[in-house]
Amino acid sequence: MARLVMKFGGTSVADLDRIRNVAAHVKREVDAGHEVAVVVSAMAGKTNELVSLCRSASLLHDAREYDAVVASGEQVTSGLLAIVLQDMGVNARSWQGWQIPIKTDGAHGAARIDDIDGSLLIERISGQGQVAVIAGFQGIAPDNRISTLGRGGSDTSAVAVAAAIKADRCDIYTDVDGVYTTDPRIVPKARRLDKVSFEEMLEMASLGSKVLQVRSVELAMVHGVRTFVRSSFEDPNAVRVMPNGDPYGTLICDEDEIVEQQVVTGIAFSKDEAQISLRRVADKPGVAAAVFGPLAEANINVDMIVQNISQDGKFTDITFTVPLADYDRAISVVKSSDKFEYESLESATDVCKVSVIGMGMRSHAGVAAGAFKALAEKSINIRAITTSEIKISVLIDAAYTELAVRTLHSLYELDKV
Amino acid sequence: MARLVMKFGGTSVADLDRIRNVAAHVKREVDAGHEVAVVVSAMAGKTNELVSLCRSASLLHDAREYDAVVASGEQVTSGLLAIVLQDMGVNARSWQGWQIPIKTDGAHGAARIDDIDGSLLIERISGQGQVAVIAGFQGIAPDNRISTLGRGGSDTSAVAVAAAIKADRCDIYTDVDGVYTTDPRIVPKARRLDKVSFEEMLEMASLGSKVLQVRSVELAMVHGVRTFVRSSFEDPNAVRVMPNGDPYGTLICDEDEIVEQQVVTGIAFSKDEAQISLRRVADKPGVAAAVFGPLAEANINVDMIVQNISQDGKFTDITFTVPLADYDRAISVVKSSDKFEYESLESATDVCKVSVIGMGMRSHAGVAAGAFKALAEKSINIRAITTSEIKISVLIDAAYTELAVRTLHSLYELDKV
Repeated sequence: MARLVMKFGGTSVADLDRIRNVAAHVKREVDAGHEVAVVVSAMAGKTNELVSLCRSASLLHDAREYDAVVASGEQVTSGLLAIVLQDMGVNARSWQGWQIPIKTDGAHGAARIDDIDGSLLIERISGQGQVAVIAGFQGIAPDNRISTLGRGGSDTSAVAVAAAIKADRCDIYTDVDGVYTTDPRIVPKARRLDKVSFEEMLEMASLGSKVLQVRSVELAMVHGVRTFVRSSFEDPNAVRVMPNGDPYGTLICDEDEIVEQQVVTGIAFSKDEAQISLRRVADKPGVAAAVFGPLAEANINVDMIVQNISQDGKFTDITFTVPLADYDRAISVVKSSDKFEYESLESATDVCKVSVIGMGMRSHAGVAAGAFKALAEKSINIRAITTSEIKISVLIDAAYTELAVRTLHSLYELDKV
Repeated sequence: MARLVMKFGGTSVADLDRIRNVAAHVKREVDAGHEVAVVVSAMAGKTNELVSLCRSASLLHDAREYDAVVASGEQVTSGLLAIVLQDMGVNARSWQGWQIPIKTDGAHGAARIDDIDGSLLIERISGQGQVAVIAGFQGIAPDNRISTLGRGGSDTSAVAVAAAIKADRCDIYTDVDGVYTTDPRIVPKARRLDKVSFEEMLEMASLGSKVLQVRSVELAMVHGVRTFVRSSFEDPNAVRVMPNGDPYGTLICDEDEIVEQQVVTGIAFSKDEAQISLRRVADKPGVAAAVFGPLAEANINVDMIVQNISQDGKFTDITFTVPLADYDRAISVVKSSDKFEYESLESATDVCKVSVIGMGMRSHAGVAAGAFKALAEKSINIRAITTSEIKISVLIDAAYTELAVRTLHSLYELDKV
């Protein structure tokens, strides 16, 4: 007997047939004797429809009203799933964010969960054997109004509920059957990972592998919530099981739980970046603050930053990347600033960031050098490099994305089963 | 300066253009210096869509889950109207039933309002000059779950809110411009009434005049809420006004407020009835209880009841009407009962109940006699008669409905301006 959170996204609850399929997954776990809380998203397309109603109502809409409107999507799904579960003979009830309550901060439209009191849920799922069907993506703000967590927030809801009710596992049912070494559409030999550490998943999630929302992985790491990525499209009554008894999918867990740690776990990439380079910036103390301060004030998230040691002690080159969506705004922020001087501004939007990720890199030298050599052999020019303890990222021309990803995937022997 | 509740139904908020029109009505009242609370229904068609989702999910769905799903319709409208009002520069916010709170009993799906604490709303609309946009049709039950008031419940929400915040008037904006002496589709000369008493409106509402939900009229009468029926299709910035300064429409109010009381105010009719007659029922004490007890237990609402004095002291005829929708069920309840004996059962579904309504009937003799005579002159056969202090109802063949209504409408000089 285990206590489980099961999370189903929009495509998994797109219509009543899909909701019945979800209910069959839930019933299987209940029949196996597990205590279950389910977290659901809005039916596919519903959130977009509600968001667009708000936008049409006013371009500058009140985020609190937006939240009231948009949160209704999950409310509908939670009620419908409870009805279908009851119809199958499963004791179930729906819970809205304000009923539990899932307390968030006051940042309407992109709220963060502050606190979930799990006692009421535990009493129901454990004491009464009742499945809790929870509307994801939402909570209640300090002003007693509905808040939403921002797009994709249902993953975060699920992990937070799992932490609050001390669940043994948080199963994220999605349209893929796990986390892969890289995007299988680019590298057909990409392999599903049985296990991946929180830290690695965090790097992959923030680098464009869209399986899980970044914040949900952060939260899982902080609270040590074992999170399972698995497919909602499997036959609910004939799910595959791995040799160790775990469900078929990818377990995101503490690195201690991963016995045989790979040096490199995966290759991620993101085309969602734009590069800006300032040539011959006057190299004075505080120049970095002068460049990046205004960007931060404009709420533009700068990702890679590369500043070379100045060659003549007077001038330096600064290169950085920003999200593609903020590119135009970033350019105008930089150009309108009078806090620093530079000779020229160069920029590119057809770039891609490719990253090599692996916990094992911490104890293995030469991983970065190997990557640079392999890319050089394919004549792929590296525009910029950044590294962290468990990640190496290179910025290259977007045209070389597939070649770079495949090259690195082979280099680290991720193709091998 | 007055305190107003403005209620808008589904067709008045059917899409964003219609919602903008509603906002213009609200802004007009705010600009005139009034304190305003708005009660809205779901966008037209939305409630039906949500109800049908629940039905498809399960024919025997949990009413609490049904409420969570269906109440989302009003939630969306309230948020959208608040956004549009803000966009027009009007200070406004949405309120869900549980936020106010509108406390109801636990009869999910058809709940009754127990209590509304108006203090928070008054503080906002009066203290802060903020328009309250309230999701109609819903509240919160003792189990802390969303409840709905049953179809058409938004009228009831509006009147209850008006009572709670001590509003000077409750304006029901609808697709007609008032209450008429009878259905204008049948009698083109039907006149809009400037004023009608609560009691008269109650009879009209329960007799098929579908302008206002019966419960909302009851509530208005109990709390003395002056209720105005007016059109939402008027140009918001050029509304018609009556000579006395009131808006163009029909005021439903205490009879004391109606200076020149008409003998007859209106002619209502309902084709939604079926007649059942039991011939030669053994006339023993308790026979009425024996007939109507099982019907009440089956939750069938018996309307007209006519029992003649038995001619030979042994047998009597009993005639009664039930809602057309319950007709088949009523027949089988009667036939399966062994508590009473009768010679034969006759029934008819092609019948119509026509009613003459007027407070003045209390002090004017001969109103009923006049009606019977006028109908007889047109050779309209009366199947059954019931009367109350302010109403005479006759059951006739449905084919004569229009003729009967027109005849009575002329008889009481309702055609005259």
